[in-house]
Amino acid sequence: MGRRLAAEGTGSFFLFATVIGSGIMAEHLAQSNGAIALLGNTLATGAMLFVLITMLGPISGAHMNPAVSLVSASRRELPWPDAGAYILTQLVFGILGAWVAHLMFDLPLFQLSVRARTGLGQWTGEAMATFGLILTIIGTVRHRPSWVPASVALYITAAYWFTSSTSFANPAITVARSLTDSFSGIDPHDAPAFIISQLVGAAAGAVMGGLLFPPERASRNL
Amino acid sequence: MGRRLAAEGTGSFFLFATVIGSGIMAEHLAQSNGAIALLGNTLATGAMLFVLITMLGPISGAHMNPAVSLVSASRRELPWPDAGAYILTQLVFGILGAWVAHLMFDLPLFQLSVRARTGLGQWTGEAMATFGLILTIIGTVRHRPSWVPASVALYITAAYWFTSSTSFANPAITVARSLTDSFSGIDPHDAPAFIISQLVGAAAGAVMGGLLFPPERASRNL
Amino acid sequence: MGRRLAAEGTGSFFLFATVIGSGIMAEHLAQSNGAIALLGNTLATGAMLFVLITMLGPISGAHMNPAVSLVSASRRELPWPDAGAYILTQLVFGILGAWVAHLMFDLPLFQLSVRARTGLGQWTGEAMATFGLILTIIGTVRHRPSWVPASVALYITAAYWFTSSTSFANPAITVARSLTDSFSGIDPHDAPAFIISQLVGAAAGAVMGGLLFPPERASRNL
Amino acid sequence: MGRRLAAEGTGSFFLFATVIGSGIMAEHLAQSNGAIALLGNTLATGAMLFVLITMLGPISGAHMNPAVSLVSASRRELPWPDAGAYILTQLVFGILGAWVAHLMFDLPLFQLSVRARTGLGQWTGEAMATFGLILTIIGTVRHRPSWVPASVALYITAAYWFTSSTSFANPAITVARSLTDSFSGIDPHDAPAFIISQLVGAAAGAVMGGLLFPPERASRNL
Repeated sequence: MGRRLAAEGTGSFFLFATVIGSGIMAEHLAQSNGAIALLGNTLATGAMLFVLITMLGPISGAHMNPAVSLVSASRRELPWPDAGAYILTQLVFGILGAWVAHLMFDLPLFQLSVRARTGLGQWTGEAMATFGLILTIIGTVRHRPSWVPASVALYITAAYWFTSSTSFANPAITVARSLTDSFSGIDPHDAPAFIISQLVGAAAGAVMGGLLFPPERASRNL
Repeated sequence: MGRRLAAEGTGSFFLFATVIGSGIMAEHLAQSNGAIALLGNTLATGAMLFVLITMLGPISGAHMNPAVSLVSASRRELPWPDAGAYILTQLVFGILGAWVAHLMFDLPLFQLSVRARTGLGQWTGEAMATFGLILTIIGTVRHRPSWVPASVALYITAAYWFTSSTSFANPAITVARSLTDSFSGIDPHDAPAFIISQLVGAAAGAVMGGLLFPPERASRNL
Repeated sequence: MGRRLAAEGTGSFFLFATVIGSGIMAEHLAQSNGAIALLGNTLATGAMLFVLITMLGPISGAHMNPAVSLVSASRRELPWPDAGAYILTQLVFGILGAWVAHLMFDLPLFQLSVRARTGLGQWTGEAMATFGLILTIIGTVRHRPSWVPASVALYITAAYWFTSSTSFANPAITVARSLTDSFSGIDPHDAPAFIISQLVGAAAGAVMGGLLFPPERASRNL
Repeated sequence: MGRRLAAEGTGSFFLFATVIGSGIMAEHLAQSNGAIALLGNTLATGAMLFVLITMLGPISGAHMNPAVSLVSASRRELPWPDAGAYILTQLVFGILGAWVAHLMFDLPLFQLSVRARTGLGQWTGEAMATFGLILTIIGTVRHRPSWVPASVALYITAAYWFTSSTSFANPAITVARSLTDSFSGIDPHDAPAFIISQLVGAAAGAVMGGLLFPPERASRNL
């Protein structure tokens, strides 16, 4: 269990530092062209996801996301107490990653975002993004497990662009992003509605994933 | 059959939402630099194609495209009535994906594009794009089936740039894109000529693919 | 042999249409920012190389490049007369691809480039680019053959940026690019020196490749 | 041993020429938009890393980086004298690569950078970047060795963006980059602190990698 939590902590630390750090770098360099900034932010996030899932997946599953751990527990792949430990670890080490990103860019460690992200459109975006993420994980694990790192990385790459919210799709990163007043930030007041939307999307993804990708024995009986 | 149609519907829904949603996002952020907008639109579309074909391909083939389903039926890989059901599903769920993209970006759900896309150059582009797509699918399935998701995704990535029409290459997405007045839209009056060009290219691709990539037994006799 | 030449022809046609077509598209959209244009041109070229080598490699080797065919003949992997037929096919169908790119973008079919590309720096660039391309092919075929499509595609992706000439690295495409007065063109007067530089680099790559990646039996004796 | 050093030399030559050459190209074309320049620089570097590790990894491990060779020696995977020979080769051929990049772009061969890169933020960036690089190598070799080229390439792709220093993460390339007065340069006075930060990060990565990814027998006992 210690090694699995170390993997979740390492992964969340690097993932959240990447999302927030590359957002700071991209905004700093992009001369206020938001699309160029988002290209840099997307490239870094997708690349890091591939790397982390490839090396940490065999240890802990490389969730780095409470929505994934909750779905995993609901599918009886992970005991509920383990899911709780996973989530706590993701939050603690992820927030540490956010602070190290600030340290690297000579910014104050402790910040609160003032960037408004709210409204029906963005909530729909978060629900859709998380719904698709859960489907991608369940379906790819089921049919082509060796491609999970590439699929999850490319799913998030696409989701940064096709959702109005740039696809947080992760309650822990939503908390961490409320603690940075930079490109990837979200006003803490707007975070709860994002997290609720993500959990709704994740639950829908778990149900749909169970129907569309039943365990092998069940699918043989169809 | 129900599971296969569910896979076609899920895939078309996410693919079309991605094409249209990322177009809206990219145009919104790119400060009228069309190349930057197209980079974002390309990245999201290619990434999502990889994800969807990886997870849904083993269920339904992950066509998400009536031209692919028709070629599949003509090659006796899919019964004709199934092809009909596939195409209807692609249209219905793909259009739903377009509307959800509008919902996410706080736009009116029901729109008609006014973007003119017409002329011999663009029709040649659509025929070329669909011809190459069908060749890619037939050839990669024949020689290196595990690389089909990457090849199809990268083919469309290239085709967004080397054709004058940015490569719709899909009659169902042509219909869906006529229903969005945004970056990826097409005036409904211009859609029929696009669809005809795509079907001509697909037919040529099926013939050429049959010659260049004959079934294994036949190719041994060459 | 007919099927192999058909593969070389199809590959050269699509590759050259992609290089020239995506250059036209990128320059048209990029508002004179050359780096953004080169990003689009690079993305399309790399993606198409992966697709073509994946599906056509098992038939003909997917050379699409006289320098590759000559090195292959010098290594006795391809009979010299076959290399001659390959090269002729690459030229004829590649030039056809250039003309179809013009057709797609409503440009005059027959053009001559006036874009100067000359000087010791660019000739060094072409020699380096082709040297590295031949090394990449020999080394990857030798050690990890299933990764050849990805490696060649990514080598050219890098070479578009690290050489001053944007890495033509292919005598046939140099001829075809002299026939387009667009982003990827080269003044026909400058083409011979490019081709000589490429052949010098290819010869050096063949020698170095033979030393660094000897056939398996030879390397066991080291 | 001769063949292994030839592989390290070839790899370092091409890698450093790519980092510096693509930086010159990108800055030249990008009209002072730093984010677009960094996109080109990142794309070329990541792509070339994949290519070189794929073809040279089976010969020498494709370190191209003294920090990697030192960690490898400390883990008893490489004898210490070999590590010394590796590092000397990386420096000599890597600097040669820098000079060839200058030759290709018609610049004076011998230069010194005047670009300041200093401060606690950037040193933290270098330590973090090298820490993550070593973890990525140890973890991916341990769990999914066939994905090492993709993982290392994508790790550096991400690290160019999430660290404030754009992630040199390599003492030899730090020396080579002090010899170019272009986009990727570093003032020679600032190089020692970068190298020290990299070595600190590498040592931490080796310790953490030993704990998180113990050899197979050890991990079975956990």
